[in-house]
Amino acid sequence: SELLKQIRQEVSGALELFVSDRTGLPDYALAATGAVVVAHSPAHLPRPSLFQRRLINVHHMNVHPEATKRLLAPFSQPGECLPLVGSSGYVDVRLTEPIRPSAVTYEHVPAAIQRPLNIGSAPRNLTLSGFLGMPPPHLSSPVKAQKRYADSGTAPPAEVHLASISVNATGRRTVHTFPVELAAREVLIDHVRLSFSSNHGRREYTCLYRLRVHGTPQLSDNP
Amino acid sequence: SELLKQIRQEVSGALELFVSDRTGLPDYALAATGAVVVAHSPAHLPRPSLFQRRLINVHHMNVHPEATKRLLAPFSQPGECLPLVGSSGYVDVRLTEPIRPSAVTYEHVPAAIQRPLNIGSAPRNLTLSGFLGMPPPHLSSPVKAQKRYADSGTAPPAEVHLASISVNATGRRTVHTFPVELAAREVLIDHVRLSFSSNHGRREYTCLYRLRVHGTPQLSDNP
Amino acid sequence: SELLKQIRQEVSGALELFVSDRTGLPDYALAATGAVVVAHSPAHLPRPSLFQRRLINVHHMNVHPEATKRLLAPFSQPGECLPLVGSSGYVDVRLTEPIRPSAVTYEHVPAAIQRPLNIGSAPRNLTLSGFLGMPPPHLSSPVKAQKRYADSGTAPPAEVHLASISVNATGRRTVHTFPVELAAREVLIDHVRLSFSSNHGRREYTCLYRLRVHGTPQLSDNP
Ligand SMILES: [K+]
Ligand SMILES: [K+]
Ligand SMILES: [K+]
Repeated sequence: SELLKQIRQEVSGALELFVSDRTGLPDYALAATGAVVVAHSPAHLPRPSLFQRRLINVHHMNVHPEATKRLLAPFSQPGECLPLVGSSGYVDVRLTEPIRPSAVTYEHVPAAIQRPLNIGSAPRNLTLSGFLGMPPPHLSSPVKAQKRYADSGTAPPAEVHLASISVNATGRRTVHTFPVELAAREVLIDHVRLSFSSNHGRREYTCLYRLRVHGTPQLSDNP
Repeated sequence: SELLKQIRQEVSGALELFVSDRTGLPDYALAATGAVVVAHSPAHLPRPSLFQRRLINVHHMNVHPEATKRLLAPFSQPGECLPLVGSSGYVDVRLTEPIRPSAVTYEHVPAAIQRPLNIGSAPRNLTLSGFLGMPPPHLSSPVKAQKRYADSGTAPPAEVHLASISVNATGRRTVHTFPVELAAREVLIDHVRLSFSSNHGRREYTCLYRLRVHGTPQLSDNP
Repeated sequence: SELLKQIRQEVSGALELFVSDRTGLPDYALAATGAVVVAHSPAHLPRPSLFQRRLINVHHMNVHPEATKRLLAPFSQPGECLPLVGSSGYVDVRLTEPIRPSAVTYEHVPAAIQRPLNIGSAPRNLTLSGFLGMPPPHLSSPVKAQKRYADSGTAPPAEVHLASISVNATGRRTVHTFPVELAAREVLIDHVRLSFSSNHGRREYTCLYRLRVHGTPQLSDNP
């Protein structure tokens, strides 16, 4: 009976964490509360039309029409990820509101239910940085986009390093939470850039399942 | 081994209840089986266009375009709620089919994953009542809507009190099931009105996450 | 402490399987990875418009607009199923990619949360068969469709029997996985046909909740 009570406590605690987005932490990169993907490296579109190719890849400032839904929402299933060309790239996200960041979470789907071909497309090494204001064009961006920015004559917002993380997509854990570096915890940010420099072996593309950003909002008592 | 068996039984029973909509009870206010939000007090729309304001708030008989999806579907996440102006208001729901009501369930998202600012928008004191037929305009409705009804010369359907409930949105439970008052269990209803008279402190608006209504359908053997 | 460790291991293992689509197996009939419903016996549409009736039932080769979403996606809730006329019928599915099949899974919603009226609409006896190429018109198809096929002068792809299964929709299990017959495990397929010959008592229609197909892709190391 004492034992049964202990079992039930463990089970209900585990389910409570499960329904608490599996982290028990508010997510300021959640689509449902207004966070959006604002830019990313070229999307991988199998058999795209010429039109799609121009729309999404050439202009580059454009965003995959499902990017926000795929990267910033719960309930991932195989295939529901943001596919970016190659084994390195980036995504820029505007947060729900300005926060002082405390931790970041990257989640992928369990390897057990992935098609073998797709396990290799999970990212391996990731870097998160934060900005107050729209991040500047990425170094990998087309010259035109970078030049346009330079021409505007305004200084880009400062980049704050949040975390460098490594994910094993074939392990049993699928939700990976990492603390933000101490120096960055007092800095106010409203955008993050997720960069990845390697994946699990697929040259063609990397598919990102879910990003969460945790922290403390600037004004928690403001209406 | 006997112990292991007991642990597994507990775990599998808990997961079984979890996939059984966490209540183990049929829900006659479920969008997927045809239930719909038919009316509500004015919606809270942050930065609405003039057009939206007129469409939704002024005419008042109109319904937030996502009301049914937000209030009558499983898998709540922060932000996926029906936002109504102020700390009191109401929602009218047409049920899937006529039932004799036995219980009602109100669910909110875990406080742990809410942005601090939003915890205050959870409702606190709620009243559920039932109707056979479309509920009459609420007392808080614009005079015009009430007058139009009065002019029609038909009597409104009788209001049956189902339950008065109180919800602590910062506690660990998120799914709150309450029995319907004995006197109401034999009454056939096909609409419910959820009224709230207070919330957890946010003056601006109250956000409703999910309503379920349980009971016995009128004709359970009818094709 | 040793006990607590054992409890936690059981709980975390159960949740791990839970998020692994409850089977721990890749699903090659998953909508999110490109699988689609390509044909089915006439849909049951309560109160369809004349237009819908013509569009979906008469031409028959047409497909219920939500068929793929309802049959080939996770997170079933009551009502989110593919409703087909009568107590026998079929559905044809094009898989994500060619596989050698190993098992099939049929899932329904828990009887506990079904409206009493709808429990009878769950299928009882099901047969799964596989094809390499589009399955030929079903024996129950309109003469016109069958004749058109015969006129084309091409031989239909061979039908491979995968499994004959029986499901008790009122039992506690909702996810039913069955191995594919040994003789079929070396055969390459890219379509399956799910046929049902009886349901749980409802004459009017049968509602299918979710089909999964497991196996090994033809080329698991192909980009
Ligand atoms: K996702
Ligand atoms: K909701
Ligand atoms: K379904």
